[in-house]
Amino acid sequence: MRNIKICIAYNGTAYHGWQRQNNNITVQQLIEDCMGRITNGKITAHGCSRTDAGVHAREFYLNAKTESAIPCPGLMRAMNKMLPDDIAVLSCEDADEDFHARFSAHGKEYVYLVNNAKHKDVFGSDLALFYPYPLDEKRLDGAAKLFVGKHDFAAFCKAEAKEHLKTTVRTVYDFTVTRSGDTVSFTVSGDGFLHNMVRIMVGTLIYVSEGKRTEADILRSLETGERTDAGVTIPPHGLYLNKVFY
Amino acid sequence: MRNIKICIAYNGTAYHGWQRQNNNITVQQLIEDCMGRITNGKITAHGCSRTDAGVHAREFYLNAKTESAIPCPGLMRAMNKMLPDDIAVLSCEDADEDFHARFSAHGKEYVYLVNNAKHKDVFGSDLALFYPYPLDEKRLDGAAKLFVGKHDFAAFCKAEAKEHLKTTVRTVYDFTVTRSGDTVSFTVSGDGFLHNMVRIMVGTLIYVSEGKRTEADILRSLETGERTDAGVTIPPHGLYLNKVFY
Repeated sequence: MRNIKICIAYNGTAYHGWQRQNNNITVQQLIEDCMGRITNGKITAHGCSRTDAGVHAREFYLNAKTESAIPCPGLMRAMNKMLPDDIAVLSCEDADEDFHARFSAHGKEYVYLVNNAKHKDVFGSDLALFYPYPLDEKRLDGAAKLFVGKHDFAAFCKAEAKEHLKTTVRTVYDFTVTRSGDTVSFTVSGDGFLHNMVRIMVGTLIYVSEGKRTEADILRSLETGERTDAGVTIPPHGLYLNKVFY
Repeated sequence: MRNIKICIAYNGTAYHGWQRQNNNITVQQLIEDCMGRITNGKITAHGCSRTDAGVHAREFYLNAKTESAIPCPGLMRAMNKMLPDDIAVLSCEDADEDFHARFSAHGKEYVYLVNNAKHKDVFGSDLALFYPYPLDEKRLDGAAKLFVGKHDFAAFCKAEAKEHLKTTVRTVYDFTVTRSGDTVSFTVSGDGFLHNMVRIMVGTLIYVSEGKRTEADILRSLETGERTDAGVTIPPHGLYLNKVFY
């Protein structure tokens, strides 16, 4: 059996996230169906992450086993021909048999984009959060640094998701907030992320900007683990899985 | 009667162009319905141009008469609240009574965007033509200059549109082809454009790049006026109305 490692990018607007669901179209389903047709067999794709509905990926890795002899360049070409315009295969290679897109990853980087302009962007309304109010990226960059390090992120996790977890301790490697013109980017890397963790951290930073939370509240929420000490879960359409570290 | 001058931007993907049609959703219809509801009257919007289905606008001007006393900032705010995410009002002001968005315009600038990358852009498949083959922007910039000046552009007009025209002579002010990373931009300004003229000129330049036409064919097509001497009509989704000159 070959073990194929594939990197894809996708615009998540039309999909209910990565993971197969019974009643919704997901990226996993399209990838498995597409690879299955090309290799003439049943494919199970292991993704590096579950992404929520509406979340995008600039780099998303998956692996899948197959007995097909199709060379990787041909597989990639055939997949790009068959997949819709909002999913692209960026690379495709044979990997070691024990490579697993999720368990082999050392960490990930996410980016959250905010369109901090006076007018909405008619060409990217699904690709960034439109937020026409003042945002002080320097202050937010300082506040974002409070998340860096090994902490219990229980306050930054969707309530229902917590019950199934052994631990809510994670390590954030870096967290920066930068501006380029009207676009404010929140870039965070870490060894792993809880469900909604990035969206709640960014939402908390927006609350700091609005005076609804302070830097002291961030520190307290990391102590108490209380979801209510953190801020709002910001909408999914500004979020991108940006890099996966192997 | 007040005469209101409005500048909008729109993503044309979802619309059958500007002009009202019986069986399709158009931008004019949404603008007129929206302004009519806010001003509590029937509105006729005069657009600066007809754009084809799928074509975008970064700047599109219209004017409309109304007896409503609503101040322009309030009208703009209300319109932006009511319009969908892919149409935005950028400015709104009272104009002279004889201002007409189409007849007062001295000229226009269009931009055609080509994504000249190895992989399709999953975040902009409706916003640029995906073209993964070699494009020499310097040669094309030279060829584009052949269009500059006053010429009979009969060869660069949709056949059915020609019958209704008094003349197919137009003046192209400037035409440049530039590259920024993977994006190749065709930027053309002129006093007026025939139906499909920009799309046929850009399609002809792509044909020059592919060796299906030469610079000499461009010169000949401007002499003969024969549509078949020019190149293909390139798809609409890379085209933007970029500026209108008053």
